Amino acid sequence: ESKQTEKAFYEAFIDRDLDAMRQVWSADADVACIHPGGGLLIGIEAIMASWREIFHNASAPQLSVRPVQIRLDNDTAIHIVEEKIRSADQGRQATVIATNVFQRDTNGWLMRLHHASLPLVEPLESPAEVPLH
Amino acid sequence: ESKQTEKAFYEAFIDRDLDAMRQVWSADADVACIHPGGGLLIGIEAIMASWREIFHNASAPQLSVRPVQIRLDNDTAIHIVEEKIRSADQGRQATVIATNVFQRDTNGWLMRLHHASLPLVEPLESPAEVPLH
Repeated sequence: ESKQTEKAFYEAFIDRDLDAMRQVWSADADVACIHPGGGLLIGIEAIMASWREIFHNASAPQLSVRPVQIRLDNDTAIHIVEEKIRSADQGRQATVIATNVFQRDTNGWLMRLHHASLPLVEPLESPAEVPLH
Repeated sequence: ESKQTEKAFYEAFIDRDLDAMRQVWSADADVACIHPGGGLLIGIEAIMASWREIFHNASAPQLSVRPVQIRLDNDTAIHIVEEKIRSADQGRQATVIATNVFQRDTNGWLMRLHHASLPLVEPLESPAEVPLH
């Protein structure tokens, strides 16, 4: 199920586990990733290089993910989630909105696109959060 | 075809035409829109209010859109595009990356999600652009 793959994606992020991160992505040549404030990365090697840099630069983040909506069509699942991220060393919390696209192939549901962006203004409301752990 | 709906979306943006903008969106209650630096908007009225504000505040933008990739699955199309936007009054150009999701229903292909974000650092390469007009 695509929710399981999304869970594995965020666990790899929290654990800063490059091998686990690589495993959640589809083998398709045009997998794509846009980090908050970042450019468009296409292809698993460019994407993994970005995660290597993120994992290297940051201490383990505190992260909770709130699912907002899921659209499922045949072999494609589109999730919108809110990520609440607090870096261990800075203590500052950011709310990131992400569109995660998964596709089903013979290896199950795998990530095809992660598009994350950071609102410049924090929303006033504080919706209920679903902690990942 | 989803490309036609995307074209109509960007034409409505350029023309600052609220009626045309409304027509490209699906009637689904959970249509979603994230503007660059903006929060998550859900529902057509919240989305239209945002466009009303954008159209009111800005003069007509110069906009070219470069399609990067399209994934089609049954009744869902996921487009990644690069938008080059130059405001008429400021002259500053920004490159925005957008994920556009369309769904096919009895009224044809309609927009379900527009997720746009602004890289904080401009990419060095300047890929070929496809002007919308």
